[in-house]
Amino acid sequence: MMNSEAITKNLAAVREKTPLIHNITNYVVMNNTANALLALGASPVMAHAVEEVKEMASIASALVLNIGTLSPKWVEAMLIAGETAHAKNVPVIFDPVGVGATSYRNETAVQILERCKPDIVRGNASEIMALAKENTTTKGVDSTASSESAIEAAKKLAVQTGGVVVISGAEDFITDGDTILSVKNGSPLMPKVTGMGCTATAVVAAFSAVNPNFLEAAAHAMAVMGIAGELAAQKSTGPGTMQLHFLDVLYTLSAGDIEKTFKG
Amino acid sequence: MMNSEAITKNLAAVREKTPLIHNITNYVVMNNTANALLALGASPVMAHAVEEVKEMASIASALVLNIGTLSPKWVEAMLIAGETAHAKNVPVIFDPVGVGATSYRNETAVQILERCKPDIVRGNASEIMALAKENTTTKGVDSTASSESAIEAAKKLAVQTGGVVVISGAEDFITDGDTILSVKNGSPLMPKVTGMGCTATAVVAAFSAVNPNFLEAAAHAMAVMGIAGELAAQKSTGPGTMQLHFLDVLYTLSAGDIEKTFKG
Amino acid sequence: MMNSEAITKNLAAVREKTPLIHNITNYVVMNNTANALLALGASPVMAHAVEEVKEMASIASALVLNIGTLSPKWVEAMLIAGETAHAKNVPVIFDPVGVGATSYRNETAVQILERCKPDIVRGNASEIMALAKENTTTKGVDSTASSESAIEAAKKLAVQTGGVVVISGAEDFITDGDTILSVKNGSPLMPKVTGMGCTATAVVAAFSAVNPNFLEAAAHAMAVMGIAGELAAQKSTGPGTMQLHFLDVLYTLSAGDIEKTFKG
Repeated sequence: MMNSEAITKNLAAVREKTPLIHNITNYVVMNNTANALLALGASPVMAHAVEEVKEMASIASALVLNIGTLSPKWVEAMLIAGETAHAKNVPVIFDPVGVGATSYRNETAVQILERCKPDIVRGNASEIMALAKENTTTKGVDSTASSESAIEAAKKLAVQTGGVVVISGAEDFITDGDTILSVKNGSPLMPKVTGMGCTATAVVAAFSAVNPNFLEAAAHAMAVMGIAGELAAQKSTGPGTMQLHFLDVLYTLSAGDIEKTFKG
Repeated sequence: MMNSEAITKNLAAVREKTPLIHNITNYVVMNNTANALLALGASPVMAHAVEEVKEMASIASALVLNIGTLSPKWVEAMLIAGETAHAKNVPVIFDPVGVGATSYRNETAVQILERCKPDIVRGNASEIMALAKENTTTKGVDSTASSESAIEAAKKLAVQTGGVVVISGAEDFITDGDTILSVKNGSPLMPKVTGMGCTATAVVAAFSAVNPNFLEAAAHAMAVMGIAGELAAQKSTGPGTMQLHFLDVLYTLSAGDIEKTFKG
Repeated sequence: MMNSEAITKNLAAVREKTPLIHNITNYVVMNNTANALLALGASPVMAHAVEEVKEMASIASALVLNIGTLSPKWVEAMLIAGETAHAKNVPVIFDPVGVGATSYRNETAVQILERCKPDIVRGNASEIMALAKENTTTKGVDSTASSESAIEAAKKLAVQTGGVVVISGAEDFITDGDTILSVKNGSPLMPKVTGMGCTATAVVAAFSAVNPNFLEAAAHAMAVMGIAGELAAQKSTGPGTMQLHFLDVLYTLSAGDIEKTFKG
């Protein structure tokens, strides 16, 4: 279900269960990701050594793989962690940051898709189109296309992975290849804060840890992101203050806030 | 001495001497750690290459080793830096983040204890119990036990290292294996900000650089952390604003603030 | 030209062209750097793998090399990216963080100067003097000298590189070895925020991407940094709030703000 009651119920489940979210993510956003997960009510852990990711992924309630600042040892660790998580039914959430920008990112993304079989992929329109091998131009890590334009690519990718795909943008779309859900919340200040997409991926992971319906989990997470972004933007004078108000709002978000603000 | 005058005097010493604190720490908190040390009045440096840590540790006034996001090259650098610092009487402060969660963290922690002989160890209750090889369950990097429950483990560990051990939590305990000091300041918002424990470790390092009585240095540092956290929380609406107010308070903390707020 | 109209015109060019800035920089400041570039209107990307930096530097509009937390693989990537950028006329901006503090930093800096031929070097007085091999003592990454005292070193270094050199400090100096420009804006709170110098380097890169007159580009960037710092400090109660207000001001900075505040 995609309504404010269902979102509230699953947010309450995150806060109650404080799921351990194992993140192998990029250097730029680690601090934001950890803070967003804590503010949301989850328990973040960052661990990337080949020597320990198998153990860490095994005790986690969800695993995030994010290739924002990839390098060979990290990719090796992502593959080990992803395979471990997949084998143990720990949800694997993949954020293909900047895929399309370099061959190395493209090759790594293919390996992660094939070997880790991510339950949910979240990216911007350019990234989802690049992953689905549609024609697109990627410029660094920012999207050059609207989220609407990537819907067919997302459906195709979801069929290919057998999982859920999220396109984030001014409007977010969430699909399992069949159903398409959308979230219209958010603020233009969000893309002006680095790593908001990566934060969304981590929030998706937290929801997937408490709800085995991944289409719903991903949609609820994107709704919480958008609602928190919208409420935070109302108090902010720019992307600096936005970062903090966003964390404060995640921490205090109530059923009433969700009910008043949600635009599905 | 553990009273507000002594705390104030040693905070003034940090501000006057601006000790260089060499940090080999985790990716998640580097920015927070550097900012907290600057706000406190110290001079942070981060350097982790095997090629330079010996030189950097040699010119430092204290060294922080933090295994939050460890990997083999970093562990090698920590061991070189720690041995160098120990040999030159530069205080070594160890933060065993997440020890107990994976074998790799456990083995690394043992190596650091044996080879770097840390003057002060700071961790949460789960970590201190894991280090002292007491029965405990660790879930990622967050503690699953109260700080009180780790006092015996802390005393045992302090006897083993010949140094000081700090358990941080709702109440902090600081022991050299014999005397036990405690700090009752703080705020429930503090554990909702990632890396507050790592920041505490860095602040402990700064105080150890100006006060060779490490029991006192660690206790003063924990008091400053708790007082700043308490004052910052009064101005904050969640963990986002908390982060900034914490840095502002560290920067402006006065004798009067300490006198009014300290609860030893 | 170094006046408020020229600064405003080039800031508008950054906002309009959103140049892709490829950063190979240190772990401590990556988040700040990315956020400052976004707030300014540029598009940041962080990528450091030897496997992809050649491709990434080739599509970038400017490249930042920053040795704040260097290690061999990163240095190798910096050299590849720098040589690529130089060959393709992509401006190379070098931030020699902590040079003078260890032999490894000194040797790396020499390699970068020789092989990447940076168009602009930005450092504090100690770093510029160390690079120009003048007598100086460096303490970690903070400067121990006034920016004025490094002017001769900066001119010498500019002649050696054939590029532009920026000394940042209470007063900033920008030289091509012949002309010397200065910026008197700024706030004493700026050095209390970690990575403000690294942010300045990234802002210099953004301006160099839209203005091939690198002396002017660097001077405009330093003016924008100083003006934003000054305006942000007026709203801040310490280095914590300073960080955010700085980003908000960068984002909203108007022609009127620049005209009223600029002190060349």
